Amino acid sequence: MAKELKDLTKRAENYSQWYNELVVKADLAEQSAVRGCMVIKPYGYAIWEKMQRCLDDMFKATGVQNAYFPLLIPKSFLSREADHVEGFAKECAVVTHYRLKNDSEGKGVVVDPEARLEEELIIRPTSETIIWNTYRNWINSYRDLPLLVNQWCNVFRWEMRTRLFLRTAEFLWQEGHTAHATREEAQQKAIEMLNVYADFAERYMALPVVKGVKTANERFAGALETYTIEAMMQDGKALQSGTSHFLGQNFAKAFDVKFINRENQLEYVWATSWGVSTRLMGALIMTHSDDNGLVLPPHLAPIQVVIVPIYKNNDQLADIDRVVNPIVDALRKRGISVKYDNADNKRPGFKFADYELKGVPVRLVLGPKDIENGTVEIMRRDTLEKHAAPLENIDAYVADLLEQIQQNIYDKALAHRESMTYTVDTWDEFTAQIERGGFVLAHWDGTTETEEKIKELTKATIRCIPMDGKDEPGKCVLTGNPSPRRVIFARNY
Amino acid sequence: MAKELKDLTKRAENYSQWYNELVVKADLAEQSAVRGCMVIKPYGYAIWEKMQRCLDDMFKATGVQNAYFPLLIPKSFLSREADHVEGFAKECAVVTHYRLKNDSEGKGVVVDPEARLEEELIIRPTSETIIWNTYRNWINSYRDLPLLVNQWCNVFRWEMRTRLFLRTAEFLWQEGHTAHATREEAQQKAIEMLNVYADFAERYMALPVVKGVKTANERFAGALETYTIEAMMQDGKALQSGTSHFLGQNFAKAFDVKFINRENQLEYVWATSWGVSTRLMGALIMTHSDDNGLVLPPHLAPIQVVIVPIYKNNDQLADIDRVVNPIVDALRKRGISVKYDNADNKRPGFKFADYELKGVPVRLVLGPKDIENGTVEIMRRDTLEKHAAPLENIDAYVADLLEQIQQNIYDKALAHRESMTYTVDTWDEFTAQIERGGFVLAHWDGTTETEEKIKELTKATIRCIPMDGKDEPGKCVLTGNPSPRRVIFARNY
Repeated sequence: MAKELKDLTKRAENYSQWYNELVVKADLAEQSAVRGCMVIKPYGYAIWEKMQRCLDDMFKATGVQNAYFPLLIPKSFLSREADHVEGFAKECAVVTHYRLKNDSEGKGVVVDPEARLEEELIIRPTSETIIWNTYRNWINSYRDLPLLVNQWCNVFRWEMRTRLFLRTAEFLWQEGHTAHATREEAQQKAIEMLNVYADFAERYMALPVVKGVKTANERFAGALETYTIEAMMQDGKALQSGTSHFLGQNFAKAFDVKFINRENQLEYVWATSWGVSTRLMGALIMTHSDDNGLVLPPHLAPIQVVIVPIYKNNDQLADIDRVVNPIVDALRKRGISVKYDNADNKRPGFKFADYELKGVPVRLVLGPKDIENGTVEIMRRDTLEKHAAPLENIDAYVADLLEQIQQNIYDKALAHRESMTYTVDTWDEFTAQIERGGFVLAHWDGTTETEEKIKELTKATIRCIPMDGKDEPGKCVLTGNPSPRRVIFARNY
Repeated sequence: MAKELKDLTKRAENYSQWYNELVVKADLAEQSAVRGCMVIKPYGYAIWEKMQRCLDDMFKATGVQNAYFPLLIPKSFLSREADHVEGFAKECAVVTHYRLKNDSEGKGVVVDPEARLEEELIIRPTSETIIWNTYRNWINSYRDLPLLVNQWCNVFRWEMRTRLFLRTAEFLWQEGHTAHATREEAQQKAIEMLNVYADFAERYMALPVVKGVKTANERFAGALETYTIEAMMQDGKALQSGTSHFLGQNFAKAFDVKFINRENQLEYVWATSWGVSTRLMGALIMTHSDDNGLVLPPHLAPIQVVIVPIYKNNDQLADIDRVVNPIVDALRKRGISVKYDNADNKRPGFKFADYELKGVPVRLVLGPKDIENGTVEIMRRDTLEKHAAPLENIDAYVADLLEQIQQNIYDKALAHRESMTYTVDTWDEFTAQIERGGFVLAHWDGTTETEEKIKELTKATIRCIPMDGKDEPGKCVLTGNPSPRRVIFARNY
């Protein structure tokens, strides 16, 4: 068994440590020399690339186009929208100089004090400000609307406590920024993009999510409404996996972006923004993986099928090669990414453990006996079950199996979430359940004060007001004040 | 005629202004609020995305994998490699603080002096240092080599004089960083990637390039050898379009990256790096475009074919729609991106001028007469020639035409370069020819002193020592000292 795997902490022992170790051992990412910034390694990046490709296609299908805006934002731009600066000023990386020079006292390279910027520049924590400053020149009339633009880029927020993928100072993401002629259209767009995220999470990541609205307290800095998809991790904690914001006219007012409407009147433009980030990698890893390593959904696995030969000599290997090569071709023709690992410098047992650790969904093992029998041994990563299957039409069989695995890990995650979703009505039940973990559906009186008090007492936050929740009058679990419907409380990442 | 087009400066009047205007009018990019940083607009970004996709596939076909390294680099890393810091220190954006705060005197948001970093961070101008610092932990033995990694990212160099795409403070690029067990393998890899660039330039950009070696003076800061592809713009100036560096063991030594070789000895790793950037957009625009606007090579055009209907009433439009829709489907089936512009709020003449400005390679125009005759009017953007073609099998016809256009603009660019490439032997000829523009093949004595003197006197630099040049002893055009072969001199972007 590979050393890496043997050393992996068990989830039951320490879930948090299991995650941290798994990210590194499975070659997904590692800490860099710069505090809070990660290196995304090739295997991890290959998964992110697949996510990007799927999301990008889905965005484009809704009419969105990509563009690119500057990394640096003038400091004064942040201040234009009051809530926005409040939300981001405390975690900004600030560029103050544009040159280094050789120290006259021989201390190496130092910042050149003469190259100080007149106005400091901020590394974008998000790009609403620079983008809305640009939109001012792009939008004149209702005919220029809607404007549907997205960018894939890096952003920077100086987080004090960081964890690989889940919370890093620099992260990769996409941020969509749309401009509309009416409030209704903008609000619909924000919800449409939330639906795209939910659809992506469920179909590709095999990640069931709850769609909901954030409370005022948890809203994006500058938004009138923040929509969210919330997922549950195996330890019962929530992970916010994507957000879509209805920004009203806040940024249009801050950057003076007006348009002439159909009635020939000048009006401020309506806005949305929406984003998902490399944090999704954290959600993916934590939702499906097990004590043997990663479990990747087939739709996002960089290697979907690995084939390992078992042989004692080169003649046997040559026989196996002859059988495997057409299988590889047939699988590739179906668009399945397959690796035939006939490298002779590693033992099969090592390969098995390594591909398990890396979460490859399907493993085929072939030895001389299998060839005689016209069969192959198949292991599926999600259940770790092995069985034999005929070599004939193995490509169709494997294609079908990959879909079964995709469905199975989704079902499993959904069953887990449902088994850990509770409805409670008293404060005692509430505190006890929060302690045990999971989503807790409870009544809340709608005030920020109560929300913060509950957080202080239990470390639980309101993840969202579910969009498909039903009206159900009740009494706030803390104050007893009236509540129109239940909200989801949980501890969260 | 569209206003934008009417206003476009002619190349013959002012080539430089023609370029600047074209980039903006064709909706490719614009200046941002941050000095030297551009906004890449959706139409420009769509071309860049196509370039990325092609290059990425080509890199992957050579075994390269993508990864991601931090945006910020500790200042001290730059100093580790002496030439490297010399090359980049003077144009670094420096992050000194990690927080803003509200000014106590009510001046808005200011840098929080208490949030000063112990060590300043540099926004990457290129990533050799942070990547080789990372490779130290990835490489132990010859079995870990070669390591073939690329990243797509933004970089920042504080340029004083900037021009959209050609020279911007922030730009997008890819940077490949490979690690090898032997000098020979690294050197070969550097040349292999140069060949990939040349192949991409010629096949996709329709851009003929000269492959060559840079002089010591023009080498990348920290490289033992820099290979380059040099293209000629329509004004006869050179544009360096991609470089690939053999870095020797310089970065391995600076970051202490050793491996155990097959003979069980500890040795420093051999390195390459190679990159192309959004500068390629500048090369693309300047090589093919004309006084009517962009001319895009079909292989990179976001819209390859536009179809414009001519009609007087809705019945006529309905008839045209019925004919066009299956053509659109047939073209798409062939992987051709086509836009049917039947919007009724713009006149055909406006559409024609607009798609010409945007460089759409093929335009089909259909009116009631054409439908009667079973023909369509075709305009090819490269020659602006119009002709009629039968509607039957029009998709095959257009597919073929796109390839002809691709070939034609390549041939045209090559003929232009050849017509402006001169061999000269005397200083008088040399200065006169440099003044008239073009590539000047001349002898040079091999010294940096002479190279700099020539630059001072004529503003011409040595673009490269051509790789396919032949040995041909001669005398330096300036000093008369012996020279083993000719090099290419030119003024450049």
